[in-house]
Amino acid sequence: MGRATYVGVDVGGTKVLAVRIDADGAVEATATRPMPGRAADADALEEAVALAARDVYDVAPPHALGLSAAGLVDGAGERFLFGAHLPWRDAPVRSSLARRTGLAVVLDNDANCAALAELTLGAAREARSALLVTIGTGIGGAVVLGGRVVRGAHGLAGEFGHMQVVPDGLACECGLRGCWEQYCSGRALERVARVALGRHLDGPEVTALARAGDEVARHAFASIGTWLGVGVAGLVSAFDPELVVVGGGVSAVGDLLLAPARTALVGSLQGTAYRAVPALVPARLGPEAGAIGAALLARDGRG
Amino acid sequence: MGRATYVGVDVGGTKVLAVRIDADGAVEATATRPMPGRAADADALEEAVALAARDVYDVAPPHALGLSAAGLVDGAGERFLFGAHLPWRDAPVRSSLARRTGLAVVLDNDANCAALAELTLGAAREARSALLVTIGTGIGGAVVLGGRVVRGAHGLAGEFGHMQVVPDGLACECGLRGCWEQYCSGRALERVARVALGRHLDGPEVTALARAGDEVARHAFASIGTWLGVGVAGLVSAFDPELVVVGGGVSAVGDLLLAPARTALVGSLQGTAYRAVPALVPARLGPEAGAIGAALLARDGRG
Repeated sequence: MGRATYVGVDVGGTKVLAVRIDADGAVEATATRPMPGRAADADALEEAVALAARDVYDVAPPHALGLSAAGLVDGAGERFLFGAHLPWRDAPVRSSLARRTGLAVVLDNDANCAALAELTLGAAREARSALLVTIGTGIGGAVVLGGRVVRGAHGLAGEFGHMQVVPDGLACECGLRGCWEQYCSGRALERVARVALGRHLDGPEVTALARAGDEVARHAFASIGTWLGVGVAGLVSAFDPELVVVGGGVSAVGDLLLAPARTALVGSLQGTAYRAVPALVPARLGPEAGAIGAALLARDGRG
Repeated sequence: MGRATYVGVDVGGTKVLAVRIDADGAVEATATRPMPGRAADADALEEAVALAARDVYDVAPPHALGLSAAGLVDGAGERFLFGAHLPWRDAPVRSSLARRTGLAVVLDNDANCAALAELTLGAAREARSALLVTIGTGIGGAVVLGGRVVRGAHGLAGEFGHMQVVPDGLACECGLRGCWEQYCSGRALERVARVALGRHLDGPEVTALARAGDEVARHAFASIGTWLGVGVAGLVSAFDPELVVVGGGVSAVGDLLLAPARTALVGSLQGTAYRAVPALVPARLGPEAGAIGAALLARDGRG
């Protein structure tokens, strides 16, 4: 028997990311694969997950594999139910991936995984209650109460991205209109920048421009940052957390996103002269938080 | 010493309601007083609470008094911080009312009180997780997880009424715009009916007309019922509860409100083909739920 390692794989809207951690949670290796070209093919995606995991195996296979996936996972952690950006539909992903890899597999929603990572190793380590909002292709969310990730009655708590923020608003991949992630996400950033610039830039390009001081790019981040604050204000009204942690690839730009979000949060909460407003802080573990959380889940079980 | 009784008083937007319960929670007496005419006078409101409580005393004073108030109550249950419809601002209401009445006093938010009543005696008795939405002058809310009312980090969880549902929407008494309760509340009902009818009717009048089959009044309930479902869908995305309980005076009209709400709930949730949609059910304890919950709190403490 070799020493214990654990692999976590995160499946988002644009890539498959794998990490290997040791028994203490330290990241030892990472690998990225593109999403399979056949985006509608459930089997191809599962194979990409298995291959990305293999990319980070140590000399021996890991003790267990965690999978973090963007969308609805059932309460038992057996099935991936639905995700706007993934091809799986009510699919028994956990058991199927376990057969494919020969490993023990644990499955959870990507934001729950990221929240577990931030709670165990990152920005929410001291918090008893926190909200995690991850901004990538879409919005992911998780709720921490009493120092634990709240799963909800059917495992579906924290699906903030599809709360309606604009009546009859922009059409969403999920089939609804006016969902929060249409106004606050990597795709929203690209749309706002495209409208202002008249050409397509992807999220990292808009981020590079904004960091270089480009006003149009900064305005694009201010737009989605303001929507971030408005949406977070609604969640703070509902949950009253100690802390709000913002992660996901789009948040890598830092205060160009978070400063307008903080302004909008204060401006959208009732009674701020009489109440505490929770701090809105960046996630510490970066874009690997979901994969790291999945690996921690593989180490500790779903609890 | 006489037998143990407990009094609960609920202060909403339009009246002060008192109940007396026995040690088993059975309601023995109720009384109602109008809100003091001097609506901005904090002392007059406190006196009205003390007088309403006195109205339901048994031969001896109760063992303790619970106060249920519409707005933000601090985490310790000492101070009423802010409420759009009440004059108290960061006021030490608990201790002040204890001095005035000579009783042990327990203070909580009205929706938390109503949730405690529904959880103990009403519609949520079997539920481990539930959301309570009360529709009166405004919207009150409470969150039940693990069979307990969740208070949040600062005692302010469940303040659903001031979540923004329409960007740059209708002005709210709280100072913000587009708050949910501007579209789904007794005041919203009156506004929708007034616009359609060209004259003012109060909520009970609109309710009576709707029950008698009046189409305009039924459309007014359908409008606020649809907004109820849209807002509940957002909360269900965030919390994933077993059950949603709808109470408050406006909900007395029953399915004329709840049927359009259920339709909008299903129509505003992502992935409904793949997920459970929680039942949306009426509160059982009626408009006295807040006062009964306050009396239960007086019996059991804030826990």
